[in-house]
Amino acid sequence: MEYSVHYQPGDGYLAWLQYRNPAAGGAGRYQEYQRIVAAGLDNTVLRTAADELVQGLKGITGLEISVSETIAASPSIIIGTFGADSVVDGFFSTEVSNAVQAEGYAIQTDNKTGSIVIGALTPAGVLYGVFHLLRIMGTGGSVRQLNILENPANQLRMINQWDNMDGSVERGYAGQSVFYENNMITGQLERIQDYARLLASTGINAITINNVNVHQTESRLLTDFLPDVARLAAIFRSYAIRLFLSINYASTMEIGGLETADPLDPDVREWWRMTAAAVYEAIPDFGGFLVKADSENRPGPFTYGRDHADGANMLAEALQPYGGIVIWRCFVYNCKQDWRDRSTDRARAAYDHFQPLDGRFMDNVILQIKNGPIDFQVREPVSPLLGAMPKTNQVIEFQIAQEYTGQQRHVCYLVPQWKEILDFDTQLQGKGTTVRRIVDGSVHGNPYSGFAAVSNIGNDSNWTGHLLAQANLYGYGRLAWNPGLSADAIAGEWITLTFGFASAHEPFQLLLRILMESWEIYESYTAPLGVGFMVNPDHHYGPNVDGYEYSMWGTYHFADCHGMGVDRTTATGTGYTSQYVQANMEQYESLDSCPDDLLLFFHHVPYTHVLHSGKTVIQHIYDTHFEGAERAYGLLSDWKLMKGQVDDRAYRHVEERLTEQAGHSKEWRDRINTYFLRKSGIPDQHGRTIY
Amino acid sequence: MEYSVHYQPGDGYLAWLQYRNPAAGGAGRYQEYQRIVAAGLDNTVLRTAADELVQGLKGITGLEISVSETIAASPSIIIGTFGADSVVDGFFSTEVSNAVQAEGYAIQTDNKTGSIVIGALTPAGVLYGVFHLLRIMGTGGSVRQLNILENPANQLRMINQWDNMDGSVERGYAGQSVFYENNMITGQLERIQDYARLLASTGINAITINNVNVHQTESRLLTDFLPDVARLAAIFRSYAIRLFLSINYASTMEIGGLETADPLDPDVREWWRMTAAAVYEAIPDFGGFLVKADSENRPGPFTYGRDHADGANMLAEALQPYGGIVIWRCFVYNCKQDWRDRSTDRARAAYDHFQPLDGRFMDNVILQIKNGPIDFQVREPVSPLLGAMPKTNQVIEFQIAQEYTGQQRHVCYLVPQWKEILDFDTQLQGKGTTVRRIVDGSVHGNPYSGFAAVSNIGNDSNWTGHLLAQANLYGYGRLAWNPGLSADAIAGEWITLTFGFASAHEPFQLLLRILMESWEIYESYTAPLGVGFMVNPDHHYGPNVDGYEYSMWGTYHFADCHGMGVDRTTATGTGYTSQYVQANMEQYESLDSCPDDLLLFFHHVPYTHVLHSGKTVIQHIYDTHFEGAERAYGLLSDWKLMKGQVDDRAYRHVEERLTEQAGHSKEWRDRINTYFLRKSGIPDQHGRTIY
Repeated sequence: MEYSVHYQPGDGYLAWLQYRNPAAGGAGRYQEYQRIVAAGLDNTVLRTAADELVQGLKGITGLEISVSETIAASPSIIIGTFGADSVVDGFFSTEVSNAVQAEGYAIQTDNKTGSIVIGALTPAGVLYGVFHLLRIMGTGGSVRQLNILENPANQLRMINQWDNMDGSVERGYAGQSVFYENNMITGQLERIQDYARLLASTGINAITINNVNVHQTESRLLTDFLPDVARLAAIFRSYAIRLFLSINYASTMEIGGLETADPLDPDVREWWRMTAAAVYEAIPDFGGFLVKADSENRPGPFTYGRDHADGANMLAEALQPYGGIVIWRCFVYNCKQDWRDRSTDRARAAYDHFQPLDGRFMDNVILQIKNGPIDFQVREPVSPLLGAMPKTNQVIEFQIAQEYTGQQRHVCYLVPQWKEILDFDTQLQGKGTTVRRIVDGSVHGNPYSGFAAVSNIGNDSNWTGHLLAQANLYGYGRLAWNPGLSADAIAGEWITLTFGFASAHEPFQLLLRILMESWEIYESYTAPLGVGFMVNPDHHYGPNVDGYEYSMWGTYHFADCHGMGVDRTTATGTGYTSQYVQANMEQYESLDSCPDDLLLFFHHVPYTHVLHSGKTVIQHIYDTHFEGAERAYGLLSDWKLMKGQVDDRAYRHVEERLTEQAGHSKEWRDRINTYFLRKSGIPDQHGRTIY
Repeated sequence: MEYSVHYQPGDGYLAWLQYRNPAAGGAGRYQEYQRIVAAGLDNTVLRTAADELVQGLKGITGLEISVSETIAASPSIIIGTFGADSVVDGFFSTEVSNAVQAEGYAIQTDNKTGSIVIGALTPAGVLYGVFHLLRIMGTGGSVRQLNILENPANQLRMINQWDNMDGSVERGYAGQSVFYENNMITGQLERIQDYARLLASTGINAITINNVNVHQTESRLLTDFLPDVARLAAIFRSYAIRLFLSINYASTMEIGGLETADPLDPDVREWWRMTAAAVYEAIPDFGGFLVKADSENRPGPFTYGRDHADGANMLAEALQPYGGIVIWRCFVYNCKQDWRDRSTDRARAAYDHFQPLDGRFMDNVILQIKNGPIDFQVREPVSPLLGAMPKTNQVIEFQIAQEYTGQQRHVCYLVPQWKEILDFDTQLQGKGTTVRRIVDGSVHGNPYSGFAAVSNIGNDSNWTGHLLAQANLYGYGRLAWNPGLSADAIAGEWITLTFGFASAHEPFQLLLRILMESWEIYESYTAPLGVGFMVNPDHHYGPNVDGYEYSMWGTYHFADCHGMGVDRTTATGTGYTSQYVQANMEQYESLDSCPDDLLLFFHHVPYTHVLHSGKTVIQHIYDTHFEGAERAYGLLSDWKLMKGQVDDRAYRHVEERLTEQAGHSKEWRDRINTYFLRKSGIPDQHGRTIY
């Protein structure tokens, strides 16, 4: 099988790096910049920065671009790191150059010559500065008086691939893996390089290249496949992205020939030290390990009566000499729960498991915490573990892949959801202790902090299956760099870069509306009021109200003929609310103050319970589902106005997906409404058809 | 992979053909019979009969047995077909020999010599007589004054294998196929011969060797694989079993290179004529074709605007010159139904499709009709199509494989169910028009009639997965021969033949109770009152009340907070009841007369509806589920008393399955009870724990 890496108009392969001529801002706008000045091009990242700039400018201006090492009088784009004899020397004030941090950059327009100068402390900073400048040009912005200083808010800006070596992608909705086929690392490296480009252009600086569920073949990435891994590391290195591996906690047994994986066993520790040494021999800037242990049937330290800190520290010790880190996932819960047991609450699990271990983890261990306590539902509260371990490095984990939000067959722009999560005030250190500030490290000042997220790409020609799902990948990177950006600003950037529409144009506004409303629409016709799931088991696509109701997965709605929801209060329920600080706990604990959209996550209420909206729960279900399906049809009608405005191939592709979504939203509407009409016996106030 | 065809004590491989010494009747009982007299042994079936008799007698008496062609004075067993110069000539009165029909036999003890004589019209009859005699000896019966005359009640006594050439078995619960592996017919023929023996010993005379869902590879059984098929036919021929093939209706397109499968197209007809000729060239006594067409996504004549009669007759015409028959399945319904559409009723489908075609089918076409209108549920009414087409050959189809009755992990002896079905009075020709008489051809006198059933065997060492499931295979064959046998008589035979217990022994009675109660027990903890399904989709194992409720498969319970069941009355429902004759229709139509165990099949009633038993529907559900799970535990306790009474390996095997059943019955109980408590809000009168 060969990847089709050749760009075809409208197939989405170039994504937001189209570099059209003329750009949205009009033809000829940037044509004075035909010369790039750069030095130090033996550095691979600087070389990439210069190449990207050449390629981007060529596309935007339609002109040939020259690269030189010396500054001339004509307007140029000058790029380089700060330091004696640098080409950017003297363009920036000390104040500015001192304010630029690692990975940050400054961009200024030189008044005298009109040249644009990009300076940074590191080659990575230069690369990000170049992509910033190209983004300005790609969206038609002015470059006359640039005076930009940017540092990334988050130190770790990571992507997790859930790719398996057989070529499948766990929870992948965009084709097969671009990394693997036939239990080997692919020889088709061009597509991987193009992916690295896409990621770097949004600011991503780390990637785990294999699924957190590490099977036997993948265990050998650490050993037998290391030369191939090194080849991938070189590609990502040239885009300033560090490569990590997900490891099998029981590798010592699986591939190491030992009979134990006890983290306190000297032979186990020695095996990991040797293995780490070999990895760093092959990949000197290797990032480290991502670990899913004692979770969903994966092996872990529990087998040996050890805890997560023992397990993580053992690995961290092996990586420490090389500056490597261990990222330990907190997605740990009892997945063999008895549905009859209403006292066990999966939502509590991450906090209960990890919070007591605060202070026990080494400095080069990071805990990776899913944004919510369950599993990437369309609506969940924020995980109470975030910020609750002041002495421990933490990163937040998002899922760009739309596992529970339409699987890239429905449009669901997730940046608004992520924004809400980041803006949530944990109040852990008083008001203003937002998740955003916890995650960026400014609250606790721990050595490591940041974002991780499950990728949504595969070998579909447009990367993400649904073309509009590219906005989530783009948005994740942008948000990881700067969580202060607004969801619509990010969407706007993506629209202009991808389709070329300026913000004043009707198609821009139309697309922006589609994206910005899509999450709310998806939520409205699926599981109501924060209750979650109601999906088909295993593949998680499509409605099935009782799909997980009598299962061992700990995800229930407890609907009966009187009411529904999960009582997670401290007064009468599972006590989950007590994992929040007092103020938040009290808000969730009380029916008076619990937000409507999380009501059924926290409370079991009668169908006749009246929401703050003034509607009963049952009427809310009917209304949102009728409206949601109607609005899903509206997305399709809206898109039809785009005909002729976008490439025909792209038009038809999105039309087909939106048609499926519209039909499928009706199935959701009818199954949910029928289920609750049958169960509650309460008719729709408006007498609409419920089967 | 090699089959383990070597008998190990207790592994169940010999099934009911153990031929123990001493037999249940006591050692030495049959030791005077050391000599067999038989002639015409160049006939393959007579050869088999003699061989089986030698082997059986050897096992039972522990002595060497001689075979000769001439009669001596010492007591012998004399076998042969009637006719001049036959060894049996003169032993039977003309009255007796005239009363023996094809496949029938007579057995008499000769007063003068004490010899036992088995005479028949055909070699097949001799073979069945031999197995009858061995059954008498195997169960310790007296042979002093035998005077037996048996003719099979049913002409066609068929087994359908649902085996695929990749080695899988559709709805198989006993390992892989014994016929195929790696898309080839297996070279391991010994096991197939042993299977033929088992079948012939119960009276089976026809087998279809491949799944009714015929995929591309299997289509080529008709052509490329014909030499291998002929080898299998030879094995079955020696046991008087005719071989049939399931065919792909669209073979002309799939493998014939034509662009159509239109039954009226001359090229299509010609292709089938040529193909049939080639098949009969290879297998002169080939039985014919079994066809699943226009059913569950299989191709059929509908594509060309033709009907089932057109399709079946086209094939029948091709087979007619050779005496072959077409067996056309009536399992035809819309499997893409919209669950919102309550007017479409899958139960009606077979009758609606086929009944109007009565008189249109050729004489060598047989319609194969599932016993019930839905699909082998634990409880269904009898299919109204049975007997409703007086001018058309019909056979009834049972499923020995326990697809919906515990999948050979739960014990469920199905003979009592089949007996109930056979005893059902359709009243089509007045009172006494039982299904049994329709199926045996005595009501309408059509050329063909009989039984077909889906096999329950695979390459598990005991053939059927659950050792006790052997009783269903045995019972099916015995019932097909003589539907007048009682379920407990058949169970008793099987128990004694398999385990050696005489009927007066405690273990016999215990096992008999386990078998005889097992269907009722299974029914009691699964879907209640004839409503059916409530199983997990696809694999059909384990409880899932809403598993098919919002699907396209047409199998719903319509439970809401008030009540449940399907209104199939003519007055207010789907009109299904009108497919029965007036008297039966009236019985089902009225709540007063509809039997409790079919109530929810025919009616939608409130949970508070009072059954004839005096209980409400909801209390019936709770009671039967609590009792059923308790009784399932009782089966296990009962079996534990068998320790030491049966081979230890067999003991442990059955104990393990019954343990699983007991645990799983609790899961059924809790999921059904919880579902209906939540839905109805009506508590258990006895206050037992419902979650």
